[in-house]
Amino acid sequence: MWTLYYAPGTCALATHIALEEAGADYEAVRVDFGSQAQRAPEYLAINPKGRVPALVTETGTLTETPGLLFFVAQRFPAAELAPLGDPFALAQVQEFNNYLCSTVHVAHAHGRRGARWADDVAAIEAMKRKVPMTMTECAELIEQKFSKGPWVMGAQYTICDPYLFTIGTWLEGDGVDTTRLPRILDHRRRMLTRAAVQKATSVEGTQMP
Amino acid sequence: MWTLYYAPGTCALATHIALEEAGADYEAVRVDFGSQAQRAPEYLAINPKGRVPALVTETGTLTETPGLLFFVAQRFPAAELAPLGDPFALAQVQEFNNYLCSTVHVAHAHGRRGARWADDVAAIEAMKRKVPMTMTECAELIEQKFSKGPWVMGAQYTICDPYLFTIGTWLEGDGVDTTRLPRILDHRRRMLTRAAVQKATSVEGTQMP
Repeated sequence: MWTLYYAPGTCALATHIALEEAGADYEAVRVDFGSQAQRAPEYLAINPKGRVPALVTETGTLTETPGLLFFVAQRFPAAELAPLGDPFALAQVQEFNNYLCSTVHVAHAHGRRGARWADDVAAIEAMKRKVPMTMTECAELIEQKFSKGPWVMGAQYTICDPYLFTIGTWLEGDGVDTTRLPRILDHRRRMLTRAAVQKATSVEGTQMP
Repeated sequence: MWTLYYAPGTCALATHIALEEAGADYEAVRVDFGSQAQRAPEYLAINPKGRVPALVTETGTLTETPGLLFFVAQRFPAAELAPLGDPFALAQVQEFNNYLCSTVHVAHAHGRRGARWADDVAAIEAMKRKVPMTMTECAELIEQKFSKGPWVMGAQYTICDPYLFTIGTWLEGDGVDTTRLPRILDHRRRMLTRAAVQKATSVEGTQMP
């Protein structure tokens, strides 16, 4: 049995949903960010990065959401969570998920974890102020260019969908006016009807906007 | 024939090297950041993100380095640039490359492109000041935990290697003391003996530290 280490409100939800979609045999273990458990020696022995998600498998531990999502898709091909037989379509899946991890998640993190990139209190406040703008830009690009509809990649539900859903739960809190993002809101509603999403958000106690 | 859009000194070098390693039929086209050509309508029509790399293929355009690297590996299996038949090993490759794009590249970018995340001049200066620390932390984690040696994934050269090499060319400029990173320096020397690396760095005019 695999173990997924997660914390509520983080991107670990994407992998959590994918594991549910795949019907994987796994246990979800909460890492208590309130007591800084992600920095405790016990957790650093599992994931030296001190972050979630981390997935402990029979062959070792994996981290980083796009890689984890692709791993779940590959290990459970019957769930059809990625176009495994089409290199170009698969590259588009990776492209979308890489954009989420390297640009969108990073933009969001400047509102909460600015201390990663500056020590100065005023600088951290300045970063917070720009989050509504950067997150709106990212969300509009997804809305207008990168989401084919009804699912991110079109007719097929893929590992892009739980990841967009997860980051989408942050938008209102980041000051994004989602009433101008009908496709993203439709995607959210569609996701909430899936059993896997209901299960994972219920276990994590995900706060929906 | 594919077209790779690149700019010198950027992460596009990683895909450039991978295309050379694969023996791909491609043309490298420089985007002139000096004249802000990446923001011109002609380039935004190719890549609406206004960044490099972008790879135009016979079936469409792809962006985001980890996705591009994996696409090259998949399309040229004979080059053996990734462990395509082993989902766990492949996930480790993705994990490493995702760490580079979402954490290491992002840490570096705070020294050059802080205006992405704050408008305040003092905040941008505060971000610059922290780059030597964040980049040293990242490089030490790679040195001590994530690089198996002699190549990143061990005996097999993979798409992790051109990406680490590319980001590695930024370390000294980011204020990292590389004399304390013998494995990364050994990796750099080893990379520089490869014909693909010599060709791509020569075409781009890469400034080696």
